This record gives sequence, C-alpha cells and structure tokens, in this order.
Amino acid sequence: MPLVFGPTAGPRQGPDGGKFDMSRTPRTTATVSFLTETEALRGLLPPGCEPVGEPVVTVEHTQLRELAWLAGRGYSMLGVKYPVRFVGDAEQLNGTFLAVLWENMPEPILSGREEIGWAKIYCELPPPRVFEHQAHYRAVWDGHVFLNLTLEDLSPGDPPPPPPPDHAGLLHHRFLPKVSTKGETEVEQMILTPASAGAQVHYDRVLRGSGKVEFVPSRWEQLPTMFHIVNKLAALPVVEWRGGSLIDSCGASDLSDQRILTSS
Amino acid sequence: MPLVFGPTAGPRQGPDGGKFDMSRTPRTTATVSFLTETEALRGLLPPGCEPVGEPVVTVEHTQLRELAWLAGRGYSMLGVKYPVRFVGDAEQLNGTFLAVLWENMPEPILSGREEIGWAKIYCELPPPRVFEHQAHYRAVWDGHVFLNLTLEDLSPGDPPPPPPPDHAGLLHHRFLPKVSTKGETEVEQMILTPASAGAQVHYDRVLRGSGKVEFVPSRWEQLPTMFHIVNKLAALPVVEWRGGSLIDSCGASDLSDQRILTSS
Amino acid sequence: MPLVFGPTAGPRQGPDGGKFDMSRTPRTTATVSFLTETEALRGLLPPGCEPVGEPVVTVEHTQLRELAWLAGRGYSMLGVKYPVRFVGDAEQLNGTFLAVLWENMPEPILSGREEIGWAKIYCELPPPRVFEHQAHYRAVWDGHVFLNLTLEDLSPGDPPPPPPPDHAGLLHHRFLPKVSTKGETEVEQMILTPASAGAQVHYDRVLRGSGKVEFVPSRWEQLPTMFHIVNKLAALPVVEWRGGSLIDSCGASDLSDQRILTSS
Amino acid sequence: MPLVFGPTAGPRQGPDGGKFDMSRTPRTTATVSFLTETEALRGLLPPGCEPVGEPVVTVEHTQLRELAWLAGRGYSMLGVKYPVRFVGDAEQLNGTFLAVLWENMPEPILSGREEIGWAKIYCELPPPRVFEHQAHYRAVWDGHVFLNLTLEDLSPGDPPPPPPPDHAGLLHHRFLPKVSTKGETEVEQMILTPASAGAQVHYDRVLRGSGKVEFVPSRWEQLPTMFHIVNKLAALPVVEWRGGSLIDSCGASDLSDQRILTSS
Repeated sequence: MPLVFGPTAGPRQGPDGGKFDMSRTPRTTATVSFLTETEALRGLLPPGCEPVGEPVVTVEHTQLRELAWLAGRGYSMLGVKYPVRFVGDAEQLNGTFLAVLWENMPEPILSGREEIGWAKIYCELPPPRVFEHQAHYRAVWDGHVFLNLTLEDLSPGDPPPPPPPDHAGLLHHRFLPKVSTKGETEVEQMILTPASAGAQVHYDRVLRGSGKVEFVPSRWEQLPTMFHIVNKLAALPVVEWRGGSLIDSCGASDLSDQRILTSS
Repeated sequence: MPLVFGPTAGPRQGPDGGKFDMSRTPRTTATVSFLTETEALRGLLPPGCEPVGEPVVTVEHTQLRELAWLAGRGYSMLGVKYPVRFVGDAEQLNGTFLAVLWENMPEPILSGREEIGWAKIYCELPPPRVFEHQAHYRAVWDGHVFLNLTLEDLSPGDPPPPPPPDHAGLLHHRFLPKVSTKGETEVEQMILTPASAGAQVHYDRVLRGSGKVEFVPSRWEQLPTMFHIVNKLAALPVVEWRGGSLIDSCGASDLSDQRILTSS
Repeated sequence: MPLVFGPTAGPRQGPDGGKFDMSRTPRTTATVSFLTETEALRGLLPPGCEPVGEPVVTVEHTQLRELAWLAGRGYSMLGVKYPVRFVGDAEQLNGTFLAVLWENMPEPILSGREEIGWAKIYCELPPPRVFEHQAHYRAVWDGHVFLNLTLEDLSPGDPPPPPPPDHAGLLHHRFLPKVSTKGETEVEQMILTPASAGAQVHYDRVLRGSGKVEFVPSRWEQLPTMFHIVNKLAALPVVEWRGGSLIDSCGASDLSDQRILTSS
Repeated sequence: MPLVFGPTAGPRQGPDGGKFDMSRTPRTTATVSFLTETEALRGLLPPGCEPVGEPVVTVEHTQLRELAWLAGRGYSMLGVKYPVRFVGDAEQLNGTFLAVLWENMPEPILSGREEIGWAKIYCELPPPRVFEHQAHYRAVWDGHVFLNLTLEDLSPGDPPPPPPPDHAGLLHHRFLPKVSTKGETEVEQMILTPASAGAQVHYDRVLRGSGKVEFVPSRWEQLPTMFHIVNKLAALPVVEWRGGSLIDSCGASDLSDQRILTSS
C-alpha cells in the first residue's frame, strides 16, 4: 500500500521491477548469546513449536550499509532469536525462531512485515560507543534506553560454522488481524527462511570474546507499544553467558526464497 | 506482530485491553484543495471505483497531540484524498478516497496498515514555519523536501459543514501480498470509515484563506520507495485553487467502527 | 565566525542588517520552583555574587514559536535560575542568576554564548507528554533522560507580578578561555539583562498548580560534557516544593539591551 | 560556560582533568578539490592574508569514530579550505586557511569555537550513500540539502605527502564580538595549528579518483544563519576539477598545540 500509484520499489523489486545485486553488500554484526531456562522460553513460542536443544538466546545487532534498494543508504537491526522445533502434521523441522526484530528505518519494517512476514518493529539504534576495548550498543525509543549490549576481550576467531544438517533455517510467526474486527485473525502462518538458500557470505573480519546484554524493565508510559516485549525479555533468567562476536562480512539474500510451512 | 509476547497495545486497545477516551484529543489541521481534471484522477482510482462529482484534490496536514494511547505523545499526518464512487455488485456509494497518508511515527503506521487497512507510509513532517502571515508546511524524507504547502490570508470562518447525506465516508484500498510469492495477493479489499460514526468534534478555532500545495518531482535516488507516488501527484494538473483552512479542534474516533465493502 | 563570508544573520540582525519585530512572538513556559538550602547554592555562585533572599530554584521549560530570525521556525529552552546579589566595588544589585540554559538548536546557542554571554548548552527537549491531567517534560542527551519535570492540578491563575523595584534583572556569568592556553581566561564578566527593558509581554493563558522536577544523577559515559552540571543540580536538597505554572504569552526582546556589570 | 559548576570535560581535558589518548582514533576522510580563480578567493580572505600559489579549494568530509572524550562516540565534519599567505609585521608564513567547518554535533562546535578559535557551525551530515561505484555525501539543514559531494573511479593510491617545508599549517580566523555592542570586536586573531605538531597518522587505506562538489544556492528562508556562506561558496568558479580521495586513517591531535599569530 498504497497500490493505486503502482508497485512500490523495495528490497525485492527495483524501480524497473528487476532484482538488486546484494552479493557485495557489507554488514557488521555484533552478537551476544546466553543460556536461559527451557521453561522460561516455553511461554515465548509460536503455534506448533516446542523447545529444542539448549535454550540459548542470541541477541544480534547488525549494521547494513550500501544497500542497492535504498540507493546506497544503510540501516541497523536488532534481533532476538532462539532454537525451536516446528511440529506440523505435514512436516517437522528444527530452526531458529526470530521472535522480534527491531529496525531503525520504517521502510524495511513495512516491506518486511507485509512481504516476508518478519516480526519487525521500530526503535532507534545509535552507532556503538567504542571505548577502552569495549563496544557498547544501545536500543532507544523516545529517549528511553531499553537495551544495553556490550562486547569486550575481542580477538580474532573463526567464522561461524555452517548450520547442522538438521537445521532448516530461520523461522517467523506471521500474523495479520482482520480489519476492524477485534481479536479475529486474517492470516497466521509459520514462515521459513531456508538455511541452505540465500547469498554466499564472505567474512572480512571475525572477532570473538565475551559479551553481555541487558533488557531494561520499562513502564507502559516509556514504551507504550512494546513494554510487554521488553519486559518479557528482561525476565528471562541468564543461566550462563555464552560469549559474543563482532563480524564484518558481505553478501546478503533478498529473502525472496522463503516459504510457508504446512501445519496440517 | 510480534505475537508471542502477547497483544500489542495501540490506538484501539490499551495496556489492559480497554479502550482509550479520545473525546478531548486536540488536533490542528491545515488543508489546501485544488481542482484537477477528471481524466488525471482516473489513473489513481482503486478497484471498483470511478470518479464522482468535481475532481477536487485535498491535501491535509494534521498535528495530533496528547494521544492517550501514546501516553500523551503526539505525531503528524499528511493525507491526499479525492471523491470517488464505489460501484460493487452488492452495494454502491459515494465517498472520499484516502489515496496515501504519510505519518512521521512508525507505530501508528504499523497499526494503521494492519488493523484498519489505511495506506500509511513514513516521512518527516517538521512543525510549520509561521512567518509574515504565512504558514509553511513541508514533507521531507532523508534530507529531501518533496512537498511544500502554504496557507495565507487567513481569517475567521465557518466550521466544515456536515457531509451531504449521500456521502458514506472515507474509503481505503487495503492490499497485502502473499508471502514471498511475487505479484500474488493475500488480501485486497475496499474499507469504509463511516462518516456518520466516530467522535463528536468540537471546533476551537476555524481560519479560512488561500493556499497552495506543490509536490516536488523526485528521482528514485532521492525517494527510493515513494518517488512514484510523489511524481504521480506532482503530475496532477491544477485547474483552480480552491482555498485553504487552518482548524483547531478536539475529539477523535479510534476508527474501530470501520467495515469492509462487499464488492460482489 | 566564520567572518570572511560577512556578518551572520541572527536574533539581533536580519539578512539586511535590520532588526526583527518580536512583539508578537508566541511562547509557552512551564515552570517549577523549589526551596533549597542557602549553603547548597553557595557553591554555585558566580564571582562577586552572594546569596540573597530565599534560596528558591526555578526550572523553566520554554517553547518558542514563529521566530522571525529563523524565518518562522521555533525551538525550546530549559533554564535553571536562582536569586543572587552582585556586590562589585562600583555597583551592587539584586537579580536572578541564569546558571545554565539548555537549548535544542545549535544556532541560538552559538549566538547566545558569543553575542550576549548566556551559559547555553545543547540537549534534546522533546514536546511534553500530556496525559491524565499531567504535563510531563524531559531533557535528553543521546538517549539518556537527565531531567523529568511534571506539572499537575493546573487551574487558571494570575500572571506573574512585576519584579520588585530592587530586582535588576537576569544575571549571566560570561567566560571565554584564551586560545590553546589551558586554564587562562580571555574574558570573564557578569552581564545584566535589565528587568525594566525588553518587550511588552501579553499573557494569553495563565495556569498555576503543583509541580516537581528531578535531575537524574548521571555518569560521564552518559553525559560526557555535562554530567558535572546535572549531578550538582541533582544534589541540591529540596526543602519544599513551591508550585508550578504553565503560561502562554507573546512578546519578546531581542536582548540587545544588555550591559556588562562593573566589578571594580 | 557554564563555569559555576566547574570546568567542562572536552577534547582537551577529561573528567579528571587529564588528557585523552587519540593515537588510535579512526577516521574516514573524503576529499574533493577544484581550481578556482585567485580573484574569486580574494573576497574570502581573513585580515592580514593574501592569496598564495594555485587557488585550489578543498572540501573535506570527515567521519570521526571512537572518540575517547565522547566516551567512544563519533561525529562528522565538513570543511572548506584554501591556501593563503599570512603577512604580519612580525611574522609571515604560508598555510591553509580553514574558512568554515560544519559539524553535526553541538558539543565539539562549542569547544572548538571557544577553546581553539575554529570557525565551526552546525549542519546535518548523513552517512554517505554508496552505490554503483559512487560515494555520495550531502550536507543538510532542516530538510534542505545545501551541498552534494561525489567520489567515483576510486582505486588504491599513495598517502598524502608531507607538507612542503614552507607550509606552516592550518590557519583560523578567530572572532568574538563584544557583548551587546553591535559591531564591536572583543577578540580578533589569526590562529595557527602547526603542521609539524600533532599526531602520528597511520594510513589504513588510501583510494584516489575523481570527484565533484556542488554548493546549492539557497535562500535566507532555507538557511537563515548561513545562506550567505553557502551562496559565496556556490559562486566560486570551477576552473578545473583536481580529483578526490577517500582515506581511512587513525591517529589525531587534541589540537592543544595551537598558537596565536603575531600580526604587529
């Protein structure tokens, strides 16, 4: 929308309808993981999914640059994900559930929610503060810091290994309500971004070290549309920190290779 | 979305699930209208609609303040609308088509697109410049001004008259694509915001005068996701200026009283 | 500066060198006062000054609109002031010391520091949240809220009385260092903005009620150039709240009628 | 200012009064140069200076990152400079005059103007758009783009050579008015940032190619405090483009080693 003016150019369609070359798009990714409790994650699972493997939550801050679909502009993202097993009647698979993805630019949020079913919402993601061998990332909404993520003791490390053979990819819970009919559902689906598909990624620099992440408990007045998300994440127990990484890479997919999981 | 954290509070549901009182919500509305040509509008009509009456385009800038669902914050909107007649097999009616609505805050854009089917997109809407008896409004995206709207010669006038009996309300073209299936449609509907429903509006100050509006022709590099919208609006011929107004009022609807038009 | 391109237009000189008419410039002023202890203020006095009268600190948030020198734009200010007595060899007088003035726009900060000697610094001053009969103001720097100011129980009241005959006006401590010579002084002066001078102020609406203000203790990492200011203000004891007000008025001075106090 | 709260931490003094280590501070510098006419530059010279050598104007966009004095934050700068010869009674020397330096953060503007006498003013400096082998930089104020700078055909090149022996450094015209006394001067000096002093710079990547820069002629309403600067720069004739560069380096001076030139 709006459609009467013709189709909107975006990540998956250029001004002439063609596709963009994203094979050399650079990004910087800062990641912190922690072990939580399986029971704590059980309340944050999408329909048809159950916990699988170690309950490790990963918080990932990504700076995207030189995006062709934005005529060379960039933006940043902050995602929260953890492993789940999808158990449908027709298919079952293991994957990583992207529970929420904050982005600091409205345009990819709109196309991401509507075209590919990702749970994107908005916040400010200022550039990291880098000081005394620490990198410090924050997420902010209207002057309220609701996330602090810190990396330290970074030294060169190995690139991420390929996912295990039984890892299907990234999972999303797509939901759209019926118009003006409170509580009714227009569309509800589980979506898979296949692990095998997408871009060839080239790693320019890989640093590994320790890291911590804190979600700041927040009041409705501070975050009127997302206090409930931040507070549930803040309530996850941290059983053990599982390290952090800072990776410069290039190469991305336009995500047009997704599919809807068949639940029955 | 995201739904696994529970429902998101918004304009139509508070943190406790209840409704907000919007009966005293203040707004300031600046409006400029112009007569264009019927043939020019014919290319900008949603499905099942045809031109009706005089082809008068209205551009409306609204500053909303003290919104309860944002815990007292405000934001601004810029809409473009014109009269259409909806001709379905089952029902026919006259209304005003809201072709596009820019807003300067992501949260109402998301809820507006998904919950009520409005064609909302993002831009910056700085406060007006008021100088030498002119009020000057702009719409901006990433440092590029794509709309100038000016009001002058304002003097006290009458509040807007009630709509004619055959005016059904505000019309919207709701469209959502299927996931990752280029060119296929998940949902396409015409939505009506009834004229008779909604809030009691109280007019605190009504000024009327002359006004002009200019859409600035823009390149893809300047507005990569909306150059096509701005350029089609910039191409509409101005046959005659139809005046402007600046209105302070209070009272709004939460728009939960919309309905889907039956097209067959 | 820069001067090689010619003089810079500003509040006191237009693009043609002339003055601006500020007699109808509108502003909205939110004020909260509290009684502190004389000894606590004694550490925050400029040279040649001593405490006088009740140690009442006033925090004042002002929204300026329709400024001619900014071609109709506006900006906001947040000031902290308290009564002092200036005791020079040549003259002695009572006034109100403006210890610090935050503004959310760089241009008036530069001209204000250099042309009139006010202690202006920068922060973000978002529009107030107005909700459930409270108005809530914040001051923010890079995602960190360092001041909360709240007004409530407002009802119509009287305009501010004229200052007492022995109140000379607003006092400023102007200080400029020598270039690249650490710790040496280029200029240090006390400046007076006379109470009797300036604009005729017209009061459009006066509301009075209760109010509170909180400076948030802050770390250097959060406010690297002003943590020391905020922390000293946060440390002032609040002996008694002295109420708040919210005033719409118009009429301002361009402050060109200031003078330097003679200290010896 | 304000001084009653104690000294302000900044680039040249930390929260404990000590200095910062800037030897590893990273920066990215994009530069475009053009040959203009000596007579055109003659109107933009500070007192006591005359043109020297080829009238080559350099426009330089710098992104600073990981600044210790900002607790790891960064900001950007846009400078305009050209060669001049300072001819005082007591000393004569050749240097590069920094006519104006825009920065996108108020705090270094204040300390830079008052502590070291640089002609800094404010604008927005968005990150560059990098697209189809071009890097595109803009300078913006309140939604108005007043500078476009483009680099292309970049390939690895040599680091900047050391300055010639008779190049004294960077020159600044420091000017401060008397308070509230229109047209009178408090301080007017020429300041030298010595070429020989400062940091050891390490070059991480040097790219050289072609480049163009355009200052956009602007009205007072668009740039009320700097239209005169932009318009004088826009009026400089471009006789020949002299190429561009994009350089990643680290190491900076805190600029505490400046001195005032003796003019008589």
